Amino acid sequence: MKDERDEAGFVKDIRKQSVDFPGWYQDVVRKAELADYSPVRGCMVMRPLGYGLWERIQRALDDLFKQTGVENWYFPALIPLSFLEKEQEHVEGFEPEFAMVTRGGGKELEEPLVLRPTSETMIASVLRNYIHSYRDLPVLTNQWNNVFRWELRTRLFLRTMEFLWQEGHTFHETAEEAEAQVLEKLECYRVIAEDWCAIPVFKGRKSETEKFAGAQYSMAIEGIMRDGKALQMGTSHFFGQNFSRAYDLTFTGRTNELQHPYSTSWGMSTRMVGSIVMAHGDDSGLQLPPRIAPIQLVIVPIFRSDAERAQIEAALAPVLRSLATIRVRADWRQERPGYKFNEWELKGVPLRLEIGPRDLAKGEASLVRRLDRVREPVKLGELERAVPAMLESIQTAMLTRALEFRKAHTVRLSSLEEMVRHFESSTGFVITPWCQDAACELTVKDRTTATTRVILDEPAQGSCAVCGRPATATVVWAKAY
Amino acid sequence: MKDERDEAGFVKDIRKQSVDFPGWYQDVVRKAELADYSPVRGCMVMRPLGYGLWERIQRALDDLFKQTGVENWYFPALIPLSFLEKEQEHVEGFEPEFAMVTRGGGKELEEPLVLRPTSETMIASVLRNYIHSYRDLPVLTNQWNNVFRWELRTRLFLRTMEFLWQEGHTFHETAEEAEAQVLEKLECYRVIAEDWCAIPVFKGRKSETEKFAGAQYSMAIEGIMRDGKALQMGTSHFFGQNFSRAYDLTFTGRTNELQHPYSTSWGMSTRMVGSIVMAHGDDSGLQLPPRIAPIQLVIVPIFRSDAERAQIEAALAPVLRSLATIRVRADWRQERPGYKFNEWELKGVPLRLEIGPRDLAKGEASLVRRLDRVREPVKLGELERAVPAMLESIQTAMLTRALEFRKAHTVRLSSLEEMVRHFESSTGFVITPWCQDAACELTVKDRTTATTRVILDEPAQGSCAVCGRPATATVVWAKAY
Repeated sequence: MKDERDEAGFVKDIRKQSVDFPGWYQDVVRKAELADYSPVRGCMVMRPLGYGLWERIQRALDDLFKQTGVENWYFPALIPLSFLEKEQEHVEGFEPEFAMVTRGGGKELEEPLVLRPTSETMIASVLRNYIHSYRDLPVLTNQWNNVFRWELRTRLFLRTMEFLWQEGHTFHETAEEAEAQVLEKLECYRVIAEDWCAIPVFKGRKSETEKFAGAQYSMAIEGIMRDGKALQMGTSHFFGQNFSRAYDLTFTGRTNELQHPYSTSWGMSTRMVGSIVMAHGDDSGLQLPPRIAPIQLVIVPIFRSDAERAQIEAALAPVLRSLATIRVRADWRQERPGYKFNEWELKGVPLRLEIGPRDLAKGEASLVRRLDRVREPVKLGELERAVPAMLESIQTAMLTRALEFRKAHTVRLSSLEEMVRHFESSTGFVITPWCQDAACELTVKDRTTATTRVILDEPAQGSCAVCGRPATATVVWAKAY
Repeated sequence: MKDERDEAGFVKDIRKQSVDFPGWYQDVVRKAELADYSPVRGCMVMRPLGYGLWERIQRALDDLFKQTGVENWYFPALIPLSFLEKEQEHVEGFEPEFAMVTRGGGKELEEPLVLRPTSETMIASVLRNYIHSYRDLPVLTNQWNNVFRWELRTRLFLRTMEFLWQEGHTFHETAEEAEAQVLEKLECYRVIAEDWCAIPVFKGRKSETEKFAGAQYSMAIEGIMRDGKALQMGTSHFFGQNFSRAYDLTFTGRTNELQHPYSTSWGMSTRMVGSIVMAHGDDSGLQLPPRIAPIQLVIVPIFRSDAERAQIEAALAPVLRSLATIRVRADWRQERPGYKFNEWELKGVPLRLEIGPRDLAKGEASLVRRLDRVREPVKLGELERAVPAMLESIQTAMLTRALEFRKAHTVRLSSLEEMVRHFESSTGFVITPWCQDAACELTVKDRTTATTRVILDEPAQGSCAVCGRPATATVVWAKAY
């Protein structure tokens, strides 16, 4: 809301994406009013545009989950330290990031409470009370909540001390069923990323090095940002019986013996909002995919007098009624049109309608796409048909553009030397055969800073690009957030 | 999910509402699987039915807020202690309930962080950065979040250490506008209580004694529970310039002078779920108003063989399609019908459809209302029309019944002796003239345990029922949660 216009009356410049990507990102997030730093170190304030994107992701994802039988619960945010300590690998992974409540109601607590970094330990402890027989399974829980990880280097949306996410936790009779669940939820995330956010992703398994603390294996979706770096956008974990065993969760099976259920967890966070900024934005600011844009169409009326304004208002009234299914904002502020165009471009509104007295005389308006600034005159009576069609075409074009970008930034290589040379001058995804030895990951990380992102679901061929031994996997490498 | 059937095969009895109301409440909340105590003292686990009610309240309330121009934000959950200390009255009100984070990332913090008990102090501190001119006003924020109050005596939904709510915070140029906002949001709460939850409420101002810490005045809606006790179901506060002054929030006004905006805050919490239990439930369990019931119609098929089951399934298929706008659950579990009837009554599903081979032969089914167990045979082809109509009539009947209950439990009295006598033998609302002196509240509280709930928007008449001086208000008294 603070006025940051430059001399020409435009909203102040943001740094150039091609010159200073992190600076560009921070400027866009703050100036487009998605989010801001807060007075608390490492915590952010999500402003209405940023939260609005999250709300739409939430709604879409929640609908997908419910279609698969998931039910929402809410579990306590405070976890006794002793709970967390029951699963060794898990606590070691998260302990350095604990935020601890040691005082409550004016007294020192006997046992500190940890602000949940994730809720596997709490949920296993609670569901022990509800799972007794194979008839109680599966239990498919999800919760929408805040989690806390004491991060030292933070970046808006991408890494903050507190963030919002959903965490699903499920319990199953068999490993097969749990593993199918892991894949099903990963597919939900792919749908959100690709079909809603127009960001193509690679889906696959994480390496042993990169998996979640306490998981038997982890799967993830990874997208590419405009700087060629990878971003993990959603993860889905198979725990086998690890957590059930650690938390003494048992059920009586079909043949009457006591067993530990198999469990999974999966999460997607407000980081998704950052991915939308970085996958689609340009030097003018955000570009929001129509399906998740809080405002899909902004109307900028152009008038010099109250009489002209009244004429435009009258002409727009039936148009607005005909666009009832579209998320429309009309900008009647007393500002120059150029200022408004600039602001709504910065905020990434996919489609802009301009209408002034001359348009009105012709019974038309102009539609301008944020994507490519293509301008098209449309008869007022045609808008009801044209606007949804253009939004649909923008959604498709954004995914296509992102796919082309990824294609242009993905190479298949077969030797360490090629990888080193590649990452010296460029970013993007590198696909190679790999032996799955962590030593090879370490070598590549040391020489390029790139890490394995996901193991693709395709047959391993040839020899490991790093060590030359027979490959057992086809893996995607990238410098990553 | 744990099987708690008694010998007759029914879900175990709950304590009698008329004999032990708190025991009844706890049994219903836990056995209907709304919520449960968690392994963390004072914190609860919201199970899918309880959370499902909250989700529907959230959706309805959020829609109402958005219609009034409110935008959702998200502010940090951790508040530096020094922020909270800037408003004296406010910090004194909440300090005894602080939960404090003193360690993070393995280190002692220089300044403790308080888990938000409410966010006035954080939001004023943040919005300072965005409010500069009268053109930036009003700012209408809301957030859906968790808050923490270190409560010693907890009760599921009604009072827990962590709970979910929304907190709205708005900033205005003038006192008039802010005061209109306070009323507007109170009216949103009335709509949720009466039109969605079928709980009639008294709306009004809180006394000085009962107001929010730091407010100039507070308003609330108060409903009556089946034990005759009052429950505060939503509050809306006018702060004047208190918080703006304490947090040095200023703007340049229309005549160029620096001013403090007027602010408000308003909240409704998961306590609403408890109010639904206590306002409508009976000895058989919950009764959910159709508009917010996660399941509106449960279908209990009655069959003895796979062939019968197949016939019923075939007959129900078109029925289910015709009821696409209704939230339906079909219960095909291998349990006796009586067991299922019992369970769905306990869980408060407003309408039950029973269908067996004999019904099928007549091309009909029976609809049974949870409200009064009235059973009505309906032709299958008629269900598309009958089900929504019956749900609507149940919603209306529930509000009417609650209104009648309140009427039967509300008296107008004019002396302290009458009040004492009344509260010795009964509960409910007592309306009296009052002088607004806190000493009178203290007298009444000492002698009856009743407190003032709200001051009604009606002219004061006669003399204060407690002290006999001229009355300045008409006030509602009750024993309250």
